[in-house]
Amino acid sequence: MSGFVTGVIPSRVNPDLQEERDRASFNVTELTHIIDGGAEKTTQRKRIESILFGDPDFRGFQDAKAFGSKSDFYSAMVHKSTKLFKLKQELRWSEEEFGIALRIAGQGMALNLQHDMFIPALERLATKEQKAKWLIPAKQYKIIGTYAQTEMGHVGKSSNHAVVLATLIIKGKKYGMHPFFVQIRSMEDHTPMPGIKIGDIGPRMGRLTSDNGYLILNNIRIPRENMLMKNAQVSPDGTFTAKAPNQANYATMVMVRVDISQYSSYLLSQGATIGIRYSAVRRQSKLDPKEREPKILEYQTQQFKLFPALAFAYAIFFSSRSLRRNYTEAYTEIQKGNLQKLPELHCQSAGMKAFCSDNMLRELEIIRQSCGGHGYLNASGIAMLVTTAAPIVTVEGETTVMYLQVARTVSRAAKLVQTDVLSGIPQHLAFNKNLVNMVRAAKAHCYYSVVKDFSEAVQILKASHQTIKVLRTLCCFFAVHGVVEESGDFLEEGISNNTRQVVAPTAKPQNTQCKNTKQTSTKRRVRDKERQRTTQKHQTQRTTHKPTRPMGNRCRIRTAICHGNNRRPNAVALVDAFDHRDMALSSAIGSYDGNAYERLFKSAEKDPMNNEEVHQSYHQYLRSFIQEMNKAKL
Amino acid sequence: MSGFVTGVIPSRVNPDLQEERDRASFNVTELTHIIDGGAEKTTQRKRIESILFGDPDFRGFQDAKAFGSKSDFYSAMVHKSTKLFKLKQELRWSEEEFGIALRIAGQGMALNLQHDMFIPALERLATKEQKAKWLIPAKQYKIIGTYAQTEMGHVGKSSNHAVVLATLIIKGKKYGMHPFFVQIRSMEDHTPMPGIKIGDIGPRMGRLTSDNGYLILNNIRIPRENMLMKNAQVSPDGTFTAKAPNQANYATMVMVRVDISQYSSYLLSQGATIGIRYSAVRRQSKLDPKEREPKILEYQTQQFKLFPALAFAYAIFFSSRSLRRNYTEAYTEIQKGNLQKLPELHCQSAGMKAFCSDNMLRELEIIRQSCGGHGYLNASGIAMLVTTAAPIVTVEGETTVMYLQVARTVSRAAKLVQTDVLSGIPQHLAFNKNLVNMVRAAKAHCYYSVVKDFSEAVQILKASHQTIKVLRTLCCFFAVHGVVEESGDFLEEGISNNTRQVVAPTAKPQNTQCKNTKQTSTKRRVRDKERQRTTQKHQTQRTTHKPTRPMGNRCRIRTAICHGNNRRPNAVALVDAFDHRDMALSSAIGSYDGNAYERLFKSAEKDPMNNEEVHQSYHQYLRSFIQEMNKAKL
Repeated sequence: MSGFVTGVIPSRVNPDLQEERDRASFNVTELTHIIDGGAEKTTQRKRIESILFGDPDFRGFQDAKAFGSKSDFYSAMVHKSTKLFKLKQELRWSEEEFGIALRIAGQGMALNLQHDMFIPALERLATKEQKAKWLIPAKQYKIIGTYAQTEMGHVGKSSNHAVVLATLIIKGKKYGMHPFFVQIRSMEDHTPMPGIKIGDIGPRMGRLTSDNGYLILNNIRIPRENMLMKNAQVSPDGTFTAKAPNQANYATMVMVRVDISQYSSYLLSQGATIGIRYSAVRRQSKLDPKEREPKILEYQTQQFKLFPALAFAYAIFFSSRSLRRNYTEAYTEIQKGNLQKLPELHCQSAGMKAFCSDNMLRELEIIRQSCGGHGYLNASGIAMLVTTAAPIVTVEGETTVMYLQVARTVSRAAKLVQTDVLSGIPQHLAFNKNLVNMVRAAKAHCYYSVVKDFSEAVQILKASHQTIKVLRTLCCFFAVHGVVEESGDFLEEGISNNTRQVVAPTAKPQNTQCKNTKQTSTKRRVRDKERQRTTQKHQTQRTTHKPTRPMGNRCRIRTAICHGNNRRPNAVALVDAFDHRDMALSSAIGSYDGNAYERLFKSAEKDPMNNEEVHQSYHQYLRSFIQEMNKAKL
Repeated sequence: MSGFVTGVIPSRVNPDLQEERDRASFNVTELTHIIDGGAEKTTQRKRIESILFGDPDFRGFQDAKAFGSKSDFYSAMVHKSTKLFKLKQELRWSEEEFGIALRIAGQGMALNLQHDMFIPALERLATKEQKAKWLIPAKQYKIIGTYAQTEMGHVGKSSNHAVVLATLIIKGKKYGMHPFFVQIRSMEDHTPMPGIKIGDIGPRMGRLTSDNGYLILNNIRIPRENMLMKNAQVSPDGTFTAKAPNQANYATMVMVRVDISQYSSYLLSQGATIGIRYSAVRRQSKLDPKEREPKILEYQTQQFKLFPALAFAYAIFFSSRSLRRNYTEAYTEIQKGNLQKLPELHCQSAGMKAFCSDNMLRELEIIRQSCGGHGYLNASGIAMLVTTAAPIVTVEGETTVMYLQVARTVSRAAKLVQTDVLSGIPQHLAFNKNLVNMVRAAKAHCYYSVVKDFSEAVQILKASHQTIKVLRTLCCFFAVHGVVEESGDFLEEGISNNTRQVVAPTAKPQNTQCKNTKQTSTKRRVRDKERQRTTQKHQTQRTTHKPTRPMGNRCRIRTAICHGNNRRPNAVALVDAFDHRDMALSSAIGSYDGNAYERLFKSAEKDPMNNEEVHQSYHQYLRSFIQEMNKAKL
């Protein structure tokens, strides 16, 4: 307790956390290399981290700035953005290196959209001549830009230019949404250009927000050449010509959806790191009255909160990496003018954007609650992750809308619409009547795809036997978890057989135990299996060290599920492998050394409200109130 | 659009919202009276609202204070608290009246714990003499107090006294947790007493937080008489005597759990109001390409987000009111020394606390997401509700822990533990191995209880035929929703027959269609029924005005489900009946007049960041950066 009271952080790793690390059955560094994409990529990332975290301005948000007003905080973020942009120029970072820096320092950036949307939009929508005129200066930060599509969002106080998606009307005829390049503020003094009304949209849920604003254009005239004309042109006489389908104008959104899918795994891996490390050092209640309070990680209920989150983090990681590869391939084709893959990419990125962000947010909130009261403190880091994740389910394609784009290609739901149409219900009503089924089907389909990606990635992985074994176990657990949680949807969609094949690819459906068994009892049995893979240390240790022996296909599925026993000993190692530096996590309870309570206390001490023993409000209000009440005769 | 651009709020109700109101099949005022507990109670509440909202300090959080620092905001909350306490004295409010005032003005109060825990703790734990000494001054605000139980929480900068739950040790022997009355700050100058370290716990997830702090006691001596000795005594010679079981010392927590259950329905009813009103005025996308964009409330997917939330709000309202009655009855007995009902009350309040807060938070987050990007803005009101609700699932008994208290009495889960123990697994491991099943069982049990309470409340209601019909439909929908969402748990626990009886009490199980049908196909069929109760306006209108005709029991259940069709026309009226004043809602998108966009814009304009066209950060950082970049030769 003395360390806690004085807020001195011990120099040793908390023994409770070290104990978990000592249990790992695989080499953590090897997995870190896999996640980074190779040992040399890990070195590259660490080099960038050293640069960033050597500078106090990039050391998370546990400092004075976090306690100030929204306006102060925004200023600090502008400062941080410009510093990072300068670093890019000075150190001549490649786009890849800068991408790593942005991800690590990213949450608190005010000018994110310069790289997240403004530059990509110009790259995808501008002609060669337009690129020379605007893309080059944007990359050199001579102009600061944004992307404006709906009435409110993404503009704010920082930008002086914007790519605006707006309806093109020529001689009264509408030609759909097209991109226009608009100067919104003076380059001399940053005041809004005539006819432009622009401002911040007001406080949001979290503290760490980019510069979201509103933009109102009132009779703004721009030259015809300011329409970004890569995909469609308007000639001086007003003739409209389209080179590509209108969809191509949304190419930036497709890219951002891929970004979001990958970013979701990043945020969730941070959350899982915090939740699992904290649960290894927090002791509470008693299972056995004769023993000391167990680590909360030992409770089955806590494992059922944290292990799915961990599995989602890895599943989304592998699946979104595979999406990125598909995207890069397709984009190369699209740049050559071959738009064939665009619709598929549209659908795939929509589904993944919805699936990744939706599950990330839900799992982060579960982790937050698993941290008890501390999960509500900003100092925990997990509360900030939840508020950072909260808008991601909405931006660049709201979850339900995205799922519906996928669902149009899913069979049973489509059949329901068809049946209704044949029965005489107008098409749009039949569609509306089946929206919920379509979303359910799309969710199940996405889950299946992610299991497939995860499983395939593990199958082709070049790594040690131990690491592959751990990842395979995690993948099996992820698949089983999906079946148990959404069993109804899987059963309805009739894709459970496929899932089994993915999980245990050598097991032929006709050999599986599930065949000819009632569906609900399957569900019950899977749940019972899930229950068996729990905390019994003595059993776990015995099973883990047993030599592998030949077994039938039926056994293989069961064992795949039961190998869940491997997860407890490897849980901390699996989050360690993500290798989030303490400064990036900004979490008092999830730090690498596990000294949660000392760090929490130290963090609370930094609150300016604790600079003075008696708060100003006492002198302002409380003293006179208490005095008055003590004088009063009641 | 001109109204939007200038931020002028029209004086008329948005016709899209009015249209929904005109569709209601029941008298809204009648239902408001039911919710308030009678017409005279509605008048009482409105009188208190007029007093509070006549004072700018109580008019929600859409003002300058919301934009300042945490410290400024805390000061404003102290001011608000002392003003409210003075009002109570000046207007000689009864406890009931003050309770209403606290609920309406409550979210932003700094000194909430004076009434929420400090006074109740003294009432429940102090002897007659101790009450004279401390309870009376506490009620007169001569002392400001709090309740301290765990290391971090509930102390902070405001209080000068605390009821501290701590382990009683006499001559080296532990006697469990007991309450002690401790002065923590000087009454002269508010400085901490010697040996006391006290401060704020640092920033939290939301903005509207009470004064949560940490308290460290280091060799503090208090007189023996400062132990609150109603339930247990220590004599001058150190003899310990217990009058009541140790549980009685947690009586305050039981009361707070009842409070939280009721408060959960209040917060959720606010959220439902915002989500449903907004969905009636927001138009987006097209179902029928020939028609204008529909209200998003017309989409089946939107209804599946909002109607369950609405049903939960009413279900939790009726069920927590019934819990309050049980509590009041049991408390009267307990005060007489009859502690027989304490264990049952403990279990019941634990289950309801978990169920109400858990479902409230989940439904609020669903509503938030259903509001699209605006749900992320504080101005929406819904974002603030989510962050206000976020800690409630943890405080005074974390959800999982609470469910486990219920589960010990639920049969199948208990049997699983027993089976494992009989098979030779030590009791504590058997227990841990079944924790997840126990939580599942407890959730299903709680759902069933809430359906039962809701249904019974509607059955005995003295109201018009129309109002009863609407509430009965909502109750049926709530029951069906639970069965569909958690079908697995219900089927496993074998309580689905009971549920059917509750929903349609006259239908005998042997007559229901579900008998002798496979369970999964029941689920599928119920889902299909759920699907049928959708947006088709033409069908709805036809069905609604059909005369009731005699029907068999099978039909009755089906109809109960299909009557979901009634919900759409009544959705807005059902949230109107909660009668939340705009100033209490603090929502730009959920106001009574439905002028969402004009209010949003007006709200954004209030952000101090929009006071100046060019933000200070431009002069501080951005200008020199852009200039530098424009000079650079790259």
